[in-house]
Amino acid sequence: MASSSSAPQVITCKEALVMEEVEISPPQPLEIRIKTIFPRIFGHEASGVVESVGQGVTEFKEGDHVLTVFLGECMSCKMCKSGKSTICQVLGFERKGLMHSDQKTRFMFKGKPVYHYCAVSSFSEYTVVHSGCAVKISPHVPLEKVCLLSCGVAAGIGAAWNVADVSKGSTVVIFGLGTVGLSVAQGAKLRGASRIIGVDNNPRKCENGTIISSPSYSEFIFQHVTWSLDFTMLVSTTAKAFGITEVVDPNSCQKPIAQVIKGITDGGADFCFECVGDSDMLTTALESCCDGWGVTVALGVPRLKPKMSAHYSLFLKGRTLKGSIFGGWKPKSDLPSLVEKYMNKEIQIDDYITHNLPFDDINKAFNLMTEGKCLRCVIHIPR
Amino acid sequence: MASSSSAPQVITCKEALVMEEVEISPPQPLEIRIKTIFPRIFGHEASGVVESVGQGVTEFKEGDHVLTVFLGECMSCKMCKSGKSTICQVLGFERKGLMHSDQKTRFMFKGKPVYHYCAVSSFSEYTVVHSGCAVKISPHVPLEKVCLLSCGVAAGIGAAWNVADVSKGSTVVIFGLGTVGLSVAQGAKLRGASRIIGVDNNPRKCENGTIISSPSYSEFIFQHVTWSLDFTMLVSTTAKAFGITEVVDPNSCQKPIAQVIKGITDGGADFCFECVGDSDMLTTALESCCDGWGVTVALGVPRLKPKMSAHYSLFLKGRTLKGSIFGGWKPKSDLPSLVEKYMNKEIQIDDYITHNLPFDDINKAFNLMTEGKCLRCVIHIPR
Ligand SMILES: NC(=O)c1ccc[n+]([C@@H]2O[C@H](COP(=O)([O-])OP(=O)(O)OC[C@H]3O[C@@H](n4cnc5c(N)ncnc54)[C@H](O)[C@@H]3O)[C@@H](O)[C@H]2O)c1
Ligand SMILES: NC(=O)c1ccc[n+]([C@@H]2O[C@H](COP(=O)([O-])OP(=O)(O)OC[C@H]3O[C@@H](n4cnc5c(N)ncnc54)[C@H](O)[C@@H]3O)[C@@H](O)[C@H]2O)c1
Ligand SMILES: [Zn+2]
Ligand SMILES: [Zn+2]
Repeated sequence: MASSSSAPQVITCKEALVMEEVEISPPQPLEIRIKTIFPRIFGHEASGVVESVGQGVTEFKEGDHVLTVFLGECMSCKMCKSGKSTICQVLGFERKGLMHSDQKTRFMFKGKPVYHYCAVSSFSEYTVVHSGCAVKISPHVPLEKVCLLSCGVAAGIGAAWNVADVSKGSTVVIFGLGTVGLSVAQGAKLRGASRIIGVDNNPRKCENGTIISSPSYSEFIFQHVTWSLDFTMLVSTTAKAFGITEVVDPNSCQKPIAQVIKGITDGGADFCFECVGDSDMLTTALESCCDGWGVTVALGVPRLKPKMSAHYSLFLKGRTLKGSIFGGWKPKSDLPSLVEKYMNKEIQIDDYITHNLPFDDINKAFNLMTEGKCLRCVIHIPR
Repeated sequence: MASSSSAPQVITCKEALVMEEVEISPPQPLEIRIKTIFPRIFGHEASGVVESVGQGVTEFKEGDHVLTVFLGECMSCKMCKSGKSTICQVLGFERKGLMHSDQKTRFMFKGKPVYHYCAVSSFSEYTVVHSGCAVKISPHVPLEKVCLLSCGVAAGIGAAWNVADVSKGSTVVIFGLGTVGLSVAQGAKLRGASRIIGVDNNPRKCENGTIISSPSYSEFIFQHVTWSLDFTMLVSTTAKAFGITEVVDPNSCQKPIAQVIKGITDGGADFCFECVGDSDMLTTALESCCDGWGVTVALGVPRLKPKMSAHYSLFLKGRTLKGSIFGGWKPKSDLPSLVEKYMNKEIQIDDYITHNLPFDDINKAFNLMTEGKCLRCVIHIPR
């Protein structure tokens, strides 16, 4: 590619996991290249500073602080224009590891293309994203905290607020007390739910208010190989702080968990949330909510069995089953208000961050994960 | 039973199907006995005149006109008090053929108990129902029409209004164009839906606007035997009159029906309704509604496979699956307003009634059903 003085150049930088130098193309039309100077979190939850912008980008300029979002918002497709959906038809969930616009990649390693992940690719010092997949935030906002809003924490809070619309005084059951489940708890607590019951098969979650969060996953594409990591995480704070009032361990129950929940909630909960990523757990959640008006929200992403099944009478008796990616937030339109709520101390984020590590120690961070010793670990890149 | 001059006596009357004389107990506390002088419809959709009342009944007196409801409303259980549910915990759907109060029957034949059906038992000149399962209506209301509001027509209209909350300008798909599906259509049309697409596997439904409605069922208990009738019905009016704008016949389609629907609706309908009674059709309905905000409502009662299954991603992408018995109406509280709407010509009922027959010809009516020649046939009992 011919380079003029004003056009962004190819850059070479370090990428996790094997810390290789890769080449990163200049941003193409409507894209921006971001130097993730500020810390980033594992996976696709990232924040950074715009390094250069492609043709046609008017919303961002070099030096702007941004959050990346794995679901973009083009503002002009049927979904975006509806104002009711978070699934943009143009910049939606990207599975192939390519840029939405030209179905190509912006990373090169030893002359071969390296694929993106979720249109974000945050395990790199620099990344190129479509301008529709980034949100500008004030330079006063701590990037090393709010990066959590770019996925799990926002998804959980939004599920309670936007998707379920949890009501004051209601009874809520959360299946899976990872970051997502504990964010649902935070959202439900802020809505004034009177009981927030956690269900987790990790027996330590039931002890002394200390939560041990177990297998989650992080997936990324590197050198044409897809890696999936299972990790267990030790939460450095208590379930109580996030709003959990009771914890049930299915393994210590004599009866099926739906029966147990119905027993302790006078016939079923008002709201159930599946935050494990297990289709059968989704059925259990649906069975655990009450006749008449019970609402179950699917958040988990099952890795094994993608089909859930349910007796039709659960619906005839008045139950509702719904779900969402990213908690019903319109990624670009709604994230700034969540960032503001964080700055105003209306929502908490800091307690989900159990570890901080420099980029060079990223392999230690992966070890922390595999050894089950973190909830969210933020990776800091030196400026 | 000792009888005083004021206490209601055992009566003997004719019952369908074999037209036997059976004894009908006096109403017990909180029950009322109804002479179904006015016509009644097959099944549990009935209207009549109160013949006598049991102890404690203050809401009804001899001579009152009533509609029966298969779901009662006790006004005092958790569900009734919530104002949000139509599934009374005390007078809910009754499967055993017994009265809710004492788990006994009020019918006797040759000295042996005969069971009720759905707490209504309308195939009889007289029937005993709990006062919580009857709704008083004005004597000026034509009982031979509004009896249809006691089940299918109300269920369909309510599904569109209360359960789905169909919005102006929306696209609606109705799977199954029987009385229930056509009532959904009526409800959706009154809400201003711009497209109401019917899906029916009866090819004649697609011709000339003439609808042929096929297998429905009516189930009743008589002499300890449960009968299930499958019948096909010739509808004497057009789909258009009820609001259907297009009809799709799955058998004449080259592609799976969900794909066909997505193709003609720019990605999926706003609202889908399952009015066939088939779990797989419920999955198809869910797949046929759109990402982001599509709502599918389950109304049909599957007779074969009671479990439906669905890919979890249908929910993550923003679809909602819900359902209802009796269209989300609180049976006693809400039916009077529907009756009023009928009297004000705001909703139509008459066109669902394709036949009228005297009680003595009830077997002809069953023949009409089995031969597929009626939609709703009203049975008239001489005063
Ligand atoms: N819908 C969205 O927008 C969205 C966003 C982020 C993550 N997710 C998904 O949500 C799920 C949860 O994410 P997370 O980061 O909180 O994961 P996590 O691994 O931290 O939490 C999962 C929790 O579930 C518990 N668990 C596992 N199996 C269980 C079982 N059989 N019974 C009871 N508890 C069980 C674990 O002990 C753990 O505490 C994942 O599937 C993830 O992919 C969805
Ligand atoms: N939820 C409730 O409150 C409620 C109330 C009344 C009836 N129901 C149920 O609703 C359903 C419909 O009742 P109805 O009285 O309208 O019945 P119906 O038999 O008159 O209508 C069913 C329609 O579905 C069509 N159909 C059958 N199989 C089909 C297929 N594979 N594909 C496409 N179309 C097909 C038939 O041709 C027919 O037109 C039944 O299951 C009934 O039990 C529910
Ligand atoms: Zn869009
Ligand atoms: Zn009740």
